[in-house]
Amino acid sequence: MTNRCDVQNRKLDTGFRLTKVGVTGVKKPVRIKRDENLVNDILNCTIDVFVDLPAEQRGSHLSRNLEVLREIVDESVERPVAGIETLAADICRKLLNRHDYADTAEVVLTAEYFRKSRTPNGRETLELYTLIGESTAVRGGPLMRTIGVKVIGMTACPCAQETVGDVLDCKGKVAVMSHNQRNICTVSMTMGETDNVEANDLISIVESSFSSPTYEILKRDDEAAVVINAHNNPKFVEDVVRDVLKRIVDRYPGLHDDVRLTVRSESEESIHKHNAFAERRTTLGDLRMHR
Amino acid sequence: MTNRCDVQNRKLDTGFRLTKVGVTGVKKPVRIKRDENLVNDILNCTIDVFVDLPAEQRGSHLSRNLEVLREIVDESVERPVAGIETLAADICRKLLNRHDYADTAEVVLTAEYFRKSRTPNGRETLELYTLIGESTAVRGGPLMRTIGVKVIGMTACPCAQETVGDVLDCKGKVAVMSHNQRNICTVSMTMGETDNVEANDLISIVESSFSSPTYEILKRDDEAAVVINAHNNPKFVEDVVRDVLKRIVDRYPGLHDDVRLTVRSESEESIHKHNAFAERRTTLGDLRMHR
Amino acid sequence: MTNRCDVQNRKLDTGFRLTKVGVTGVKKPVRIKRDENLVNDILNCTIDVFVDLPAEQRGSHLSRNLEVLREIVDESVERPVAGIETLAADICRKLLNRHDYADTAEVVLTAEYFRKSRTPNGRETLELYTLIGESTAVRGGPLMRTIGVKVIGMTACPCAQETVGDVLDCKGKVAVMSHNQRNICTVSMTMGETDNVEANDLISIVESSFSSPTYEILKRDDEAAVVINAHNNPKFVEDVVRDVLKRIVDRYPGLHDDVRLTVRSESEESIHKHNAFAERRTTLGDLRMHR
Amino acid sequence: MTNRCDVQNRKLDTGFRLTKVGVTGVKKPVRIKRDENLVNDILNCTIDVFVDLPAEQRGSHLSRNLEVLREIVDESVERPVAGIETLAADICRKLLNRHDYADTAEVVLTAEYFRKSRTPNGRETLELYTLIGESTAVRGGPLMRTIGVKVIGMTACPCAQETVGDVLDCKGKVAVMSHNQRNICTVSMTMGETDNVEANDLISIVESSFSSPTYEILKRDDEAAVVINAHNNPKFVEDVVRDVLKRIVDRYPGLHDDVRLTVRSESEESIHKHNAFAERRTTLGDLRMHR
Repeated sequence: MTNRCDVQNRKLDTGFRLTKVGVTGVKKPVRIKRDENLVNDILNCTIDVFVDLPAEQRGSHLSRNLEVLREIVDESVERPVAGIETLAADICRKLLNRHDYADTAEVVLTAEYFRKSRTPNGRETLELYTLIGESTAVRGGPLMRTIGVKVIGMTACPCAQETVGDVLDCKGKVAVMSHNQRNICTVSMTMGETDNVEANDLISIVESSFSSPTYEILKRDDEAAVVINAHNNPKFVEDVVRDVLKRIVDRYPGLHDDVRLTVRSESEESIHKHNAFAERRTTLGDLRMHR
Repeated sequence: MTNRCDVQNRKLDTGFRLTKVGVTGVKKPVRIKRDENLVNDILNCTIDVFVDLPAEQRGSHLSRNLEVLREIVDESVERPVAGIETLAADICRKLLNRHDYADTAEVVLTAEYFRKSRTPNGRETLELYTLIGESTAVRGGPLMRTIGVKVIGMTACPCAQETVGDVLDCKGKVAVMSHNQRNICTVSMTMGETDNVEANDLISIVESSFSSPTYEILKRDDEAAVVINAHNNPKFVEDVVRDVLKRIVDRYPGLHDDVRLTVRSESEESIHKHNAFAERRTTLGDLRMHR
Repeated sequence: MTNRCDVQNRKLDTGFRLTKVGVTGVKKPVRIKRDENLVNDILNCTIDVFVDLPAEQRGSHLSRNLEVLREIVDESVERPVAGIETLAADICRKLLNRHDYADTAEVVLTAEYFRKSRTPNGRETLELYTLIGESTAVRGGPLMRTIGVKVIGMTACPCAQETVGDVLDCKGKVAVMSHNQRNICTVSMTMGETDNVEANDLISIVESSFSSPTYEILKRDDEAAVVINAHNNPKFVEDVVRDVLKRIVDRYPGLHDDVRLTVRSESEESIHKHNAFAERRTTLGDLRMHR
Repeated sequence: MTNRCDVQNRKLDTGFRLTKVGVTGVKKPVRIKRDENLVNDILNCTIDVFVDLPAEQRGSHLSRNLEVLREIVDESVERPVAGIETLAADICRKLLNRHDYADTAEVVLTAEYFRKSRTPNGRETLELYTLIGESTAVRGGPLMRTIGVKVIGMTACPCAQETVGDVLDCKGKVAVMSHNQRNICTVSMTMGETDNVEANDLISIVESSFSSPTYEILKRDDEAAVVINAHNNPKFVEDVVRDVLKRIVDRYPGLHDDVRLTVRSESEESIHKHNAFAERRTTLGDLRMHR
């Protein structure tokens, strides 16, 4: 059957341009390059893809988005992709090729990711992270890539620790209790194609910025070590964000000033039913100037 | 238009009986009786309703379920319902009336619920809970009602506290730290129409079984008090469940032995990315015999 | 106890400014003004509030956010708020008062909302919507308010309908089938304090832009009417967004050109496991110029 | 460090037995045996594991659960597991070995799973399913395994189609429209170790019981074919459940009568904001007798 039905191509007199049109929640397994800490070289990706739509065209050709995704998956079997943000960029370029009426393309991609880690006392564990890869492209203009990670760790509250120390008159002595809880920290960095950042480095930066990382298996000595470390290193959500920012500035002296970044920390407060939250949106250049 | 279309009533030769057929995720505002701690006398309920279906009938008349729900809401404006489990029971009875081909009916109902509370130092707060009301009915047989609550609180780990005390040689002294986290405890009790239980009592029972309740507003002295109380009262998920069980046995000497109950405690572990979980499913009679 | 513990106020030499710090997921019941279609004058709101934090201050005083929310709720008992965006604006102003170190404040608020509606054949129903109210304020600068709605409706696909018509050679005749599905359409408009928009109007605009609104109770004649209406009015996600945009331009000639708006339509495609999506972000002025 | 801290082993005088204690939400990548349709031989599993706890013991040794899960993963690298229910059974056995105080063990496991499929016109696609594997074991007693699948498909409503046919007087002619929508159908079968069922067969059974399966990529001719097939094959949620039951009875004549099964179909109704639902819980023997 040929395309007798061309409802999407129909011309509109009174249309409005649309900022983005596409599909969301597509799931695809993609093969990535192996490295030593990698447990699984296939990432199960959740993908949203969009292009813009001119005012005079009624519909976007949504099935082309799925064809692009399919080709990318098939190609990854032969040539594994370097990373999730490279994958997003490849999809972005193909979207502009396939949708000739579009001027912009956008891809958002997340995947669960397992990485080997070690407890304070050196036992091997396997920890789960979320990778974030995004890309935006303008026809004839620059392609931007975003690489990000979502990491679960632990924060112990500095304020409660100090107040408890006062109340119990045990300040400065070892082992002052506080409330502590799961913290979810998200970092994403947006850059052109000449800059680069490794997701594994971002994970390490975030894990060293918590009161303590968390682990799947903790025998008693490791459990005590995690608790003691966290209380020797109490952190507000604000502290987590600022420590990530500081480490990023130190770690990436070679990246351009116009690299944009967002760092966000959310604590699922053990003493409240709501969460505490802190965020900084900025550029590397701005961070370098104002520290 | 009359019901010329009777696809649902069509007779089947080779059908199977269905255990339950109905609608899920219906939202309805229902007026309940006021009491002094009640902030809002209208509960926004999320409702699932089901009846069984005989082998020889093709379809259940789903729109009748919605009509029943609508009538119940309208009636509640005139005569506020006594509680969420009474509401579930009323819906159950109406379902059997309306679906004459059905032998059983089931209703599951949840609603967010605000209640006034007080911090350790006596400041007034408003806390959020989830109410659970269920009912099942057999035509010509008994109607059972389930009243339940889901409560968020805090647990501090007894094991980590003891290990830390050993490691730092500060055992028995005040203020030994531990990991602590949000705990979600769910209690539900299923009984006939001659027994009764108040959701507010169940909330109080659960809150006294945590290491500490949690609060929306905590100024510094209250924050310290919550942290100290929780660490003076360390609890495994197992302890939370058993303390709720014990309090229920003590609180309800008059309830029948065949009252069924489920108590569940889940801790969103601050030191792990996974949760800890404990549950007991039993009857009041069994609890009374084996303690 | 006085505030001996002032960890938050501690001065930092090497801090970074934070864009926003606050609490998320706070639940509060707020009383709003009654109108004739209103079923429940208390909205259960889910609230996020934030202020910025200067580089030299370690922590934001998070408990003040909860105090502000508590006062707003208490005041609403005496003087019901006009709408959810007014509530957001009131909270924003109080946040800047209470956090004297902050230059910006942001509030995001959502609530479930029931409204009376009528089926095609005139039967009364009660439908559920989500209200969205947001506000941002800059100290000494303008306060912006966002009023938005999230509405569930139905779309029938124009392309599949036309292709089926071709394949079955029944084009132009009545009753050509297509795939249809739930569509979730979100509209939000951001404006200063001199402009205003009613959430109820936005709901009506969205419902007339679907292939058909959806209803809680549909007896057979109404069910057929909904299906027929939807197929006489097939819509892509793109069409839903553009029809909402057109109606907004027509409905609000008096609003300023710089009113910003976002319209988004997402179809949970019945023929796919993924969704179709369209969005426009723009200003009223831009829409007026380019249609 | 030796286990000086034995809080968990502490003896209780007044304890209650607990039905199940364990961990929930553990994520693990597990290698499974390849077959021709398999796209990814590593499944990202979400795992809950539990054992019971005697009345006189204070705590379950939760870290042993994680050690068991770690060993299973490591072993799967050398010897890929045959299926997700075999994996659950292996975990169950190890749990009883490791928790010598426990009499029962339970494992619940889900994983996303990609499988090659073909559109009506023969184009290759890749579709996503959820696999469910469960196991329960009693010490010295039988081990039961559950194998299940969750499949997304499409239903078109027979009642609306007939009513529309009446209203428009086009009954019996081709192409009568109806409402259609996503349907989620879940099947699980519980059996001893001498019976067996393949997840791939269950997926095929479910997909042939919808009005139509759904596909990631549909060019126009395939889109029309899916819509036409669905409308030639209209199904209530009740029909989906019964057709799955019938196919299971036909497909598995050799399985024991005491195999338990649950079949559930939920339609995300395009004409309503709520869902339609049907379920049967039964045994193979009961189905064989009463059809």
